[in-house]
Amino acid sequence: MSKITMAQGAGGERMQDFIRKFVLSELRHDIGEIPLSALDDAAVVEGIVFTTDTYTVKPLFFPGGDIGLLAVAGTVNDLSVMGATPMALSCAMIVEEGFDEDGLLKIMRSMSAAADDAGVSFVTGDTKVVEKGAADGLFVNTSGIGRRSQHLDGNIERVRASREYEWSWPNDSAIADGDVLIASGQVGNHGVALLSFREGYGFETSVKTDAAPLNRLIESALEAGGVTAMKDPTRGGIANLLNEWAEKSCIGLTVREEDIPLNPSVISACEMLGIDPLEIGNEGKVVLAVVPEAAEDVLKAIRTSPEGRQAGIIGEATSAIDGVVLETHTGGRRLIEPPVGDPVPRIC
Amino acid sequence: MSKITMAQGAGGERMQDFIRKFVLSELRHDIGEIPLSALDDAAVVEGIVFTTDTYTVKPLFFPGGDIGLLAVAGTVNDLSVMGATPMALSCAMIVEEGFDEDGLLKIMRSMSAAADDAGVSFVTGDTKVVEKGAADGLFVNTSGIGRRSQHLDGNIERVRASREYEWSWPNDSAIADGDVLIASGQVGNHGVALLSFREGYGFETSVKTDAAPLNRLIESALEAGGVTAMKDPTRGGIANLLNEWAEKSCIGLTVREEDIPLNPSVISACEMLGIDPLEIGNEGKVVLAVVPEAAEDVLKAIRTSPEGRQAGIIGEATSAIDGVVLETHTGGRRLIEPPVGDPVPRIC
Repeated sequence: MSKITMAQGAGGERMQDFIRKFVLSELRHDIGEIPLSALDDAAVVEGIVFTTDTYTVKPLFFPGGDIGLLAVAGTVNDLSVMGATPMALSCAMIVEEGFDEDGLLKIMRSMSAAADDAGVSFVTGDTKVVEKGAADGLFVNTSGIGRRSQHLDGNIERVRASREYEWSWPNDSAIADGDVLIASGQVGNHGVALLSFREGYGFETSVKTDAAPLNRLIESALEAGGVTAMKDPTRGGIANLLNEWAEKSCIGLTVREEDIPLNPSVISACEMLGIDPLEIGNEGKVVLAVVPEAAEDVLKAIRTSPEGRQAGIIGEATSAIDGVVLETHTGGRRLIEPPVGDPVPRIC
Repeated sequence: MSKITMAQGAGGERMQDFIRKFVLSELRHDIGEIPLSALDDAAVVEGIVFTTDTYTVKPLFFPGGDIGLLAVAGTVNDLSVMGATPMALSCAMIVEEGFDEDGLLKIMRSMSAAADDAGVSFVTGDTKVVEKGAADGLFVNTSGIGRRSQHLDGNIERVRASREYEWSWPNDSAIADGDVLIASGQVGNHGVALLSFREGYGFETSVKTDAAPLNRLIESALEAGGVTAMKDPTRGGIANLLNEWAEKSCIGLTVREEDIPLNPSVISACEMLGIDPLEIGNEGKVVLAVVPEAAEDVLKAIRTSPEGRQAGIIGEATSAIDGVVLETHTGGRRLIEPPVGDPVPRIC
C-alpha cells in the first residue's frame, strides 16, 4: 500500500506526478479561460481570476516575517502573475488547541499589515480548532479573487506589436522564441532565512525573507507592456519555475549564472548546506517573460518599485535548445533539471 | 498567557467572540455588498459571491460519506444560501506524510462525485505535505465563487410584493415579523453518524450523514420566490442558526418542537449521550425564512427535490418576543440559547 511522501508536496517532479494522479485524473475540471489543467498560479473563470494556497510554513515566525505575511503575499502574487488586480481575500485557519493567543494576534496583525500594503481586503473566512497534537500550531489558507488588470489590454497590444499572441491573459504556456527573462530581485533569501531559524540548523545569517505582495510592481510591468508570462518562484525555486515554463511553452530557456541576482550570504549558506539556491523557494519574487522590444521598458518600470530595485535580465527563450540551460560563471553550460524533492521543506 | 481552546472553533458564542477579537478587529475588511462583518455564509464583492471552508472532520470516513463529500457539499451550500449559482471551486489539501494513497484516491473520487452531483468544477488547487505527526491525516479547504442566481430577482420581487425589503441578496439580517421558517429535512443526522464511528463511542445506529450539495433544492426555492434568508445549520446546529438570525435580524423566532423533523434514532442517540439534537451540526440541510404568502409554494418546491422530501414549516419570526423560543411537545415554552461549546467537535 503506497504512502504519501514529503516529496509529493515539494513543488518538483514528484508533485507534478501527484497532481496528475490525484487531482487532474479524478476531479471534474477544465472549465474557464485558464482551467485547472493549465496548472498555472491561478484559474480564470468568466473573467474572474481565482486562486488558493495553504500555508504550513515552519517555523511560524522567521527573520523578516511570519505565516501571516506569507499568506497574504503568496495569494496576492498568485493573482497578480495572471495579470489580475486582487479584489478580495479569504482567510481560513486551522488552529491547534493550546496555541498562544498573543502569537495568533501577532500573526493576524501581520496579515492585516500585508493586506494594507497590497490594498486588498478580507471578505470571508473560517476557523477550525483541532485537539492538541492534531496540527502543528497553525495552518492558514488564503484564497483570492481578482479581476482583469486595467493595464492588461495595453500589455497584450504591445506583445502583439512584436509577435503573434493568441492569449488574452499572460500564462505559463505563452512564452515564445526570443522572449527575454527578467527576475525581479535576489533569489533564495526566503528559504535560507527560514532554515537559519529552524531547530538543528541555527547558523547565523543576516538574510531575511523576501515575502511581500508584488501587485504594484506587477501592475507597473503591465503598464509598460509586452509581458507574455509571469510566475513567482515559490516551491522548487527558480529551477522549477523555468522547467515548468520550458515544458508548458514547449521552448528552450537559457539563463546566465552571473546575471541571476544572489545575496552573497545566500550563496555561502547554500554552499555550507550543500543545496542549490536555484531550487529554494521565494515568496516575494516574480520572473517575467517579455517580448524583446519591451524588455528594457519593463525592467525600468519594475526597478521603480522598492521590491524591484535589484531586478535584472537573466536570460532568454530560444527554440534552438530543449529544456533549461545555465551558462555558468566559468563559461560552461549545464542543464537545470526540475528538482525532484525539496531542499527546504515547509517554506510556505 | 491565554491559549486557544476547542470551544473557540465550535460555532457557538465563544466562536463569535473569537471572530470579533482575532478577525474583525484585526483584518482589513468591510468591502462588498455583503462584507465580512455581516458574518454570513459567504461574502458578495462586485457581484461575485465568495466563500471558504476548511474541513477537519474526524474520522475522515463515516456512515454515508467522507471528508471529500463534505468539502464539496459545505462550500456549494455556503454559496447557494446566499442566492448564488456556484461557478467554480478550489481544493487545497494538507496531507500528513505516510497517509494512505488508496484512502486519498477514495476521497478524491468522492469529491468528484459530489461535484458532478452539484454540476460544479474545480479550477484551482494546492497541496501541502507535512511531516508525520504535524497534521491529523488530511485537512481539506474548499473555497468557492458564484454568481447571482437567475431566479434571485424574481425571488426578491415576490418578497417585495409582500413587504418592504431593501436587500438585493437574501441574508441573515433580512428576516422580518411574520416570516415563516422552513427546514429542508431532519436535523442532527450528520453529527450522530460521525459520533457512532468515533473511538470510544461506537454505539450502533442506522443514521447516516445528510451531507449533500443543496444548490438545486435552493434554486427551486428561489424560483418559487419569497425567500428572505437562508442558512445551513452546520457547527452549533439549528440552535446556533436560529440565534444568529434572531440577533442579526433583531427579531424573535418561535419554533415548534413537534414540527422539527427528527429521526427517531437521532433522538435516542442524543438521549443516550445527553446532548441536544438541535445543537448538532448538519451538512445537507438548509433553513429558509420566507414571506408568509409564499411559504406553501416554497415548501412545495423544496419537497420536489430528493433532499427536501421531509421539509416542513417549523416556526415563524415574530416581533412579539425576543430571542428564540421553543414550544415543546408538552405545551411548554423554553428559550433556545446559542450553544457555548460543541457537543460534537470536528464534525466538518
